[in-house]
Amino acid sequence: MFACTGYAADAADKPLSPFSFERRDLRPKDVKIEIAFCGVCHSDLHQVRNEWKNTVYPCLPGHEIVGKVVAVGPEVTRFRVGQNAAVGCMVDSCRSCASCKEGLEQYCENMFVATYNGTDKQTGENTFGGYSDAIVCDEDFVLSLPENLDLAAAAPLLCAGITTYSPLRRWKVGAGQKVGVVGLGGLGHMAVKLAHAMGAHVVLFTTSPSKVDDARKLGADDVVISKDKDQMAAHASSFDFILDCVAAQHDINEYIALLKRDATLCQVGAPEDPLAVAVFSLIFSRRNFAGSLIGGIAETQEMLDFCGKHGITSDIEIIPIQDIEKAYARMLKSDVKYRFVIDMKSLKQAA
Amino acid sequence: MFACTGYAADAADKPLSPFSFERRDLRPKDVKIEIAFCGVCHSDLHQVRNEWKNTVYPCLPGHEIVGKVVAVGPEVTRFRVGQNAAVGCMVDSCRSCASCKEGLEQYCENMFVATYNGTDKQTGENTFGGYSDAIVCDEDFVLSLPENLDLAAAAPLLCAGITTYSPLRRWKVGAGQKVGVVGLGGLGHMAVKLAHAMGAHVVLFTTSPSKVDDARKLGADDVVISKDKDQMAAHASSFDFILDCVAAQHDINEYIALLKRDATLCQVGAPEDPLAVAVFSLIFSRRNFAGSLIGGIAETQEMLDFCGKHGITSDIEIIPIQDIEKAYARMLKSDVKYRFVIDMKSLKQAA
Repeated sequence: MFACTGYAADAADKPLSPFSFERRDLRPKDVKIEIAFCGVCHSDLHQVRNEWKNTVYPCLPGHEIVGKVVAVGPEVTRFRVGQNAAVGCMVDSCRSCASCKEGLEQYCENMFVATYNGTDKQTGENTFGGYSDAIVCDEDFVLSLPENLDLAAAAPLLCAGITTYSPLRRWKVGAGQKVGVVGLGGLGHMAVKLAHAMGAHVVLFTTSPSKVDDARKLGADDVVISKDKDQMAAHASSFDFILDCVAAQHDINEYIALLKRDATLCQVGAPEDPLAVAVFSLIFSRRNFAGSLIGGIAETQEMLDFCGKHGITSDIEIIPIQDIEKAYARMLKSDVKYRFVIDMKSLKQAA
Repeated sequence: MFACTGYAADAADKPLSPFSFERRDLRPKDVKIEIAFCGVCHSDLHQVRNEWKNTVYPCLPGHEIVGKVVAVGPEVTRFRVGQNAAVGCMVDSCRSCASCKEGLEQYCENMFVATYNGTDKQTGENTFGGYSDAIVCDEDFVLSLPENLDLAAAAPLLCAGITTYSPLRRWKVGAGQKVGVVGLGGLGHMAVKLAHAMGAHVVLFTTSPSKVDDARKLGADDVVISKDKDQMAAHASSFDFILDCVAAQHDINEYIALLKRDATLCQVGAPEDPLAVAVFSLIFSRRNFAGSLIGGIAETQEMLDFCGKHGITSDIEIIPIQDIEKAYARMLKSDVKYRFVIDMKSLKQAA
């Protein structure tokens, strides 16, 4: 075991604060990464505050992890010391169920091991995430980072990037298609960049007229103010695919009505309460309402390589870890363009 | 024009009663069918009572029409006098939109012409359906009936049959698959028969223990009493496809939870109010919630041929047209096994 430092919460109503703990010594296939940056996902906040009622304390969040390999176990073949590397939302899975065998570890039938608030398969211990100075992970769950990408701005690809890339691929988004993205936040801004790079005609839906210029800069061909019923009606039955990135309660039927026959609206934002779906709208055009969860390890690598090729990273605001609670407060007001990333050098400063 | 008789309603609060009207003389491609039987669909009741707020009166319902060809226009090539023939839910469509060109007239982007309460494309007049002694229809919307099928029992194939057949085909139901059917009514009993004939392992869900034996006779391999939480839980994440035939408000999340990863629940029952969908359940297994509407003309013929090959018809109760209001009252109590069919000979009796 070796000593680590990070920021963790002791209870749902306690702020994140400096935390000392130990990580395991390297197993034969383990990679040790010195964490340079960690993105701040909305899930971190949900988990820290026990909003999903399953948090184990102390809770040390973070699953958008990038850094440098500083040690490898004797059986590691894909990583070497000094190389950049990344860890996303998963650090292990059962590896034997149908989903794992298909490379869809995110749907592991025995539940993948989450990077934080997961249960280590060998020790049974609670996992600690990326708001820390180092992480140890089996190389099968470590990703290579294209060297041309800015390290800090690449961190959010590990969750916001793959969460939007995977459904765009599954529903075969590409040239000649009209694709909608609902909501311009951490997920939405990645979806716009990725769908644009895939060659689609991208339409962003937002409630905020202030986001129109930004959306166009990010790659949207068109921006619709979703409160404007005339603008919405002009797009009726015209979309090949819509990716809904909104986690708040909203009227999804307004968007389903914009789908072509046989087209799909996929939800990646995860509202806590059920959404009301007008069945007639599905029936009369054989439309689909679906969901999608992050992506498998192979697909995450594919996404990173795609981003390397197209020079895609996240738009970020770098913060010291001491400001994490302020960042959460601003995130709750959607006051971030478009992802906070913690600079882990700040851990070494006096708290 | 020639004289016809039927049963129609003058207003939403008036019963169906004898009605005399005229149908058009045959156009070159028209087929005239002497109606032998007409199935009674729940839609008939909705339309007659203006529950969809779009009924034009007088309203003469009926879209499960079977009978004999008694005349053909000079350009008709597929039908001859004396042959059995059928008309379903549509009598025309625009024939030029993308959906029509793909043989999906039910999704005609300019709206198909419904067999009743539709608007004739040439005359602009309200269409009258199958609760009548004869119908005239362009041969492109007339179906051939396999000669081995009982004529009366084949009538419900034209709506209940195709409504369930089409989604079973679209989602590729077949041998080696576990398929759920929710609700054992007019639609559900056809879905059980068809999915069984397609080789699937069929599980029927019902709230009524009294329907268990019936469901097994119809072809269900297993029957689940949906109120029994243990029975439901035993089927978690195990279905390749579920066809939900329930038009009443119900908890659809109980069924979505029974789908495998990537599987679809398709709604063909059409609840008036939106259904609440738990988004987490879609996201965590990339499940789909979809809808489907009847089927195209070519697929309806394929379905009839499939039924001919497998000897499949509906389980019916034959009534004289004078009993239609009694039948509606019983239908509202689900007191029919499993479809009423009007014997049109009764039209000639004194009302």
